[in-house]
Amino acid sequence: MEDLKLHGFWFSPFTMRVVWTLKLKGIAYENIEEDWVNKSPELLEYNPVYKKAPVLVHSGKPICESMIIVEYIDEIWPHYSLVPRDPYERAQARFWVNYADQMVPALFAALYFKCGAGEEKENPTEKIWEHLKVIEDQCLSDKRKFFGGDTINIVDIAFGSLFKVLYTIEDVNEVKVIETEKFPLLHSWFNNFKNVTVIKENFPDREKMSATIKSIIEKALASS
Amino acid sequence: MEDLKLHGFWFSPFTMRVVWTLKLKGIAYENIEEDWVNKSPELLEYNPVYKKAPVLVHSGKPICESMIIVEYIDEIWPHYSLVPRDPYERAQARFWVNYADQMVPALFAALYFKCGAGEEKENPTEKIWEHLKVIEDQCLSDKRKFFGGDTINIVDIAFGSLFKVLYTIEDVNEVKVIETEKFPLLHSWFNNFKNVTVIKENFPDREKMSATIKSIIEKALASS
Repeated sequence: MEDLKLHGFWFSPFTMRVVWTLKLKGIAYENIEEDWVNKSPELLEYNPVYKKAPVLVHSGKPICESMIIVEYIDEIWPHYSLVPRDPYERAQARFWVNYADQMVPALFAALYFKCGAGEEKENPTEKIWEHLKVIEDQCLSDKRKFFGGDTINIVDIAFGSLFKVLYTIEDVNEVKVIETEKFPLLHSWFNNFKNVTVIKENFPDREKMSATIKSIIEKALASS
Repeated sequence: MEDLKLHGFWFSPFTMRVVWTLKLKGIAYENIEEDWVNKSPELLEYNPVYKKAPVLVHSGKPICESMIIVEYIDEIWPHYSLVPRDPYERAQARFWVNYADQMVPALFAALYFKCGAGEEKENPTEKIWEHLKVIEDQCLSDKRKFFGGDTINIVDIAFGSLFKVLYTIEDVNEVKVIETEKFPLLHSWFNNFKNVTVIKENFPDREKMSATIKSIIEKALASS
């Protein structure tokens, strides 16, 4: 087995991206489940800037930031390639990976909205819909099964993990976010994505994930 | 000459990154100076998601987002390489490029602070100093001339353009941001950086840049 350790949280969409990448490529690794409240000294040492997971440690050397880790894995183990080989397609894929990261603040706002922090604010589901509309209209096509075409690429990994969070937002806020009629292509893509065997086998349980994240948010708000 | 067009703003730190990259590599291109108020229909068509410059158009195909463009250029024209070849060093460089992007909101907050929008807010220079301290302590070393070592890499390009903005913030806010005693390594690095011949030749005039950005901010605040 490679000297490969992943520090992460099973319910984190960012950790999920790395897990999916490693599993899709069939790379064995040691999973180190971090405690959200008491992060390990190793994690804090490996990621002194953000003090966040995931961190992948390869032969003692730490790599931080989920999509940087995904590209690193793809460079070291290029089989089942996730980053397009063509420079132009690669740039386009990175553009949408970057767009996925732009969505994150709206997702966090939506998660914290219901739990008491957002009474005076606009409902953040609207902002999420704006993002989904951009993806639906400008990035998807009914001619492709995945963002990557016939197989998954980095864009599927980036958006897939955030879509997993949309379920949690639906559960926490008791609203429908991924409306099928509004976003038929996205709906169809996400069905394709979560039915890929490796993704399905490493797709955290919806109920357990929603309960865990809800509890974390409630504790954070209570102590703030 | 390559069929290569750059839509940008001469005073934009993001456009600067692409200009420096093209000039360092000696690649000829057509410069299309955009009008900040009336962006060209081509720019809006090339970047429908953000409607922002820079956009590099290579043989009719648009690439958006400054650091994605820089990596694209480095892949197509690999001489005077800016992205480290070693996958681990590459991941580290991408981490710091990403960190540079995390600094942008603090820079914008500081620019808009003096011009009337920030009376009730905390002085954003403090936030910028926090970022600079992270870079000073964790990314720099007195053993290296540049972030890239003996030559410039993507981290120098990413931070260099933002440091150019720090001068503008100093002029607009009439404060000292890059304090030599606080950040001796950064101060020394930036001196090395701006003395690289190609950078020096393509370094927008400080006074003109500050005046232009100040005028844009004042107009934006007046119409908001």
